[in-house]
Amino acid sequence: MRPKRIVTELDPFFHPKSLALVGATGKQGKVGRLFMDRFLETRFQTLYPVNPGAGEILGVKAYASLKEIPGPVDVALVVTPPNAVVETIKECVAKGVKGIIINSAGFGEGGGFGKEIEKEMVRIAREGGARIIGPNCIGIYCPSAKLPFPMGAAQESGSVGVISQSGSLADHLTLLATKTGVKFSKAISCGNECDLNATDFLEYLGEDPQTEIIVSYLEGIKDGRKFHQLIKEISKSKPLIIWKGGMSEAGARAAASHTGALAGSPSVWEGVLNSAGVVRVKSFEEILDTLYVFYFQPLPRGRKVAIITATGGPAVGTTDACLEMGMEVPNLSKETKEKLRKIIPAAGTSVQNPIDLTLGAAVDADVYAEVIRTVAGDDDIDLLMIIGSGGKQFREITSGAARTLTKPIVVSIIMPPETVLEDSKVFLGKGIPVYPDPRRAAKALSKLARYANFRRDHNHGEALFREGPWRS
Amino acid sequence: MRPKRIVTELDPFFHPKSLALVGATGKQGKVGRLFMDRFLETRFQTLYPVNPGAGEILGVKAYASLKEIPGPVDVALVVTPPNAVVETIKECVAKGVKGIIINSAGFGEGGGFGKEIEKEMVRIAREGGARIIGPNCIGIYCPSAKLPFPMGAAQESGSVGVISQSGSLADHLTLLATKTGVKFSKAISCGNECDLNATDFLEYLGEDPQTEIIVSYLEGIKDGRKFHQLIKEISKSKPLIIWKGGMSEAGARAAASHTGALAGSPSVWEGVLNSAGVVRVKSFEEILDTLYVFYFQPLPRGRKVAIITATGGPAVGTTDACLEMGMEVPNLSKETKEKLRKIIPAAGTSVQNPIDLTLGAAVDADVYAEVIRTVAGDDDIDLLMIIGSGGKQFREITSGAARTLTKPIVVSIIMPPETVLEDSKVFLGKGIPVYPDPRRAAKALSKLARYANFRRDHNHGEALFREGPWRS
Repeated sequence: MRPKRIVTELDPFFHPKSLALVGATGKQGKVGRLFMDRFLETRFQTLYPVNPGAGEILGVKAYASLKEIPGPVDVALVVTPPNAVVETIKECVAKGVKGIIINSAGFGEGGGFGKEIEKEMVRIAREGGARIIGPNCIGIYCPSAKLPFPMGAAQESGSVGVISQSGSLADHLTLLATKTGVKFSKAISCGNECDLNATDFLEYLGEDPQTEIIVSYLEGIKDGRKFHQLIKEISKSKPLIIWKGGMSEAGARAAASHTGALAGSPSVWEGVLNSAGVVRVKSFEEILDTLYVFYFQPLPRGRKVAIITATGGPAVGTTDACLEMGMEVPNLSKETKEKLRKIIPAAGTSVQNPIDLTLGAAVDADVYAEVIRTVAGDDDIDLLMIIGSGGKQFREITSGAARTLTKPIVVSIIMPPETVLEDSKVFLGKGIPVYPDPRRAAKALSKLARYANFRRDHNHGEALFREGPWRS
Repeated sequence: MRPKRIVTELDPFFHPKSLALVGATGKQGKVGRLFMDRFLETRFQTLYPVNPGAGEILGVKAYASLKEIPGPVDVALVVTPPNAVVETIKECVAKGVKGIIINSAGFGEGGGFGKEIEKEMVRIAREGGARIIGPNCIGIYCPSAKLPFPMGAAQESGSVGVISQSGSLADHLTLLATKTGVKFSKAISCGNECDLNATDFLEYLGEDPQTEIIVSYLEGIKDGRKFHQLIKEISKSKPLIIWKGGMSEAGARAAASHTGALAGSPSVWEGVLNSAGVVRVKSFEEILDTLYVFYFQPLPRGRKVAIITATGGPAVGTTDACLEMGMEVPNLSKETKEKLRKIIPAAGTSVQNPIDLTLGAAVDADVYAEVIRTVAGDDDIDLLMIIGSGGKQFREITSGAARTLTKPIVVSIIMPPETVLEDSKVFLGKGIPVYPDPRRAAKALSKLARYANFRRDHNHGEALFREGPWRS
């Protein structure tokens, strides 16, 4: 099968053998320096710093202009002042560059004249067979190709794709998530979208075999009809986690001045996103909370949660949260209850869901692990939430028991941030999402259950669900 | 004016000159040891460990029974096995103890027979002129009286009162909040409420001059009519932050087995709490998020927020969040816009709210601080939210500018948890609430604005609002 046109046109951006950094410099505090540092960190092979001063920049031979570069240039990353950008595009075309990424700002986001310049930029590029990402973007993060974002997220390649109409969000997201073990395939900062836009990137990541989950921050979409078609189709096989910004009048006004995009009617957006099975989020924190459970855990077969805790208080509030978010906290089966009564004799006849182990049972490692396994074995339970107060023993019990499960499991730890940090690292390192508040855990699980349900409905009820942990 | 009966009856619990720890022990892992450690830490003056073995416990002279204690005993904290509790209450009465706190569990929370024993316990105590807190509670945290909770929250006295029907929640809340500079007057773990109950504690803290803010986790209320009357009255002068657990059917079932309380109809609760001006929260994290802004900041005069950020992305989503939560993100006044144009010439004519400083202006310390002060000076702005990426310079600029303000200000920092920890400590140390996500900041501010509005409506529009920072 011939690859789609969008794949052929976008591929050069993600597999460049050589890259020219136009506006490279050794001066601290400049974007050109920031990118130099990052490319040196990733050890990108054929890097051509371009600067009128030529000479050497941080030990790498520099060129006064693109045309002086000896070999071919696949991608140009442009970080020059805005008034040098049009000329640079002309040079790119003359050099045969196919992918141009423009970091420089000061164009269409200010409206009016800037938009006219963008049109001219696109005309020049397209006539020369090149495509543009940006301007006013932070470019592409693609670990397999050693392409970095400015903040320097880790360089291991994985399965999460990102499309963001906010550069800082893409930068922060990849930085924070890679610190906790999430690995990315390709992340794209859209910028002003003078040429290529979010819909193009969505089509590309939808086709990309390396990308299994897509996270997107969007403010406005230029080709609404195609976008709608794409999200409906892609959601059937890849979870699509979307934060739509500009859903209020004042938010839309802010969006217009941010990237010059029109945000579109909130009610239309609501309908489009929800009917297409999109996993909706409304904040940066919620993106991460949601991504963890989609990335690390398998899809559940239903929406029935078992809550296991060592103290009564959180059990009540967490049950409320699960119910409020569309899940069930069902009674355990007779069989499970009988097994539990044997494991925790102190529980007497009061074994029910949420399961309150009381502190006594919780400190007995064998009992705790056996309770988790027994509850997970109940056919009426689809998802597990463990609430604990952290610490080494708790980590070992929970992650040990979790290793044998084929149902999603998450952990919530209510302790001071400095204590939770250590626990979080260990749990995420073993592929168990961990939340500082059970309500956030419930929210993430509910999104996983809702999406699993959408997948079942749109794939003729077929069990497309991975068995066993998604990754660890 | 004569003090209310509830004040006279509860005061002994909060100002004991002497306390008997019945069930004290030196054995690690026992509750009796945990409390011994805590009382030694707080240097409670006249502590009488009671244990049949007598002798010495951790260097403190112990007594075989209450009657052997030479001096008077004001409060008894009972941590014995449940079958020894009734006898202990008899001894307390014989000794003239007026306040009995029962930590031991295994009574009414199991229903049936346990409830009968509780009735007997209360009968004996009341006939002897004593009152009971508990059983199945963690007691009282009262820094001014050197009374500790088991986890050992800091011992500086302050203005926040706590009433909790979950012991672990009260313990975690005081531990976490004191680590960030919040100081408490009195925190009470209600337990099974066989005698004194949450309504009594609410009446007491309502009267308590030391308590200016009340935080409460509730599952069920025994005297609904009185409770309703109290929250309406107290809310007029003290913010009442309440998390009501058991608002779902399954949650109510969990609550019943937790403390034996009936949770009551959710719809009745909704109406009662909202009409009384209660500040509603739904999770542990939200309690802390909300408490920070009420504790550290003044009340605003309205609900108009200015958002100041150095990157466009968060501005859009934060504006959405503010609007969704009932606040306004208004245009700035003509005068303010003109001033801002002089301070940030690069902004050109696009100065609007949310204020996107762009990175260039944000790194200039004087510009940044001047922008904050100018926006705060706008009569049309009631609250300020600063979104930054942390670091020493950002902390100094923001907290420096905030020092001169009389309007509420909060900060949001989107960075990895380990980076934010340091920033959080510094900001909270200066009385500026800080949130890892702007949406959480917006939620907290919206609660402050809504409560301020309630206060205005219920105090004949009088300006009861503190000028200047609440504390720092």
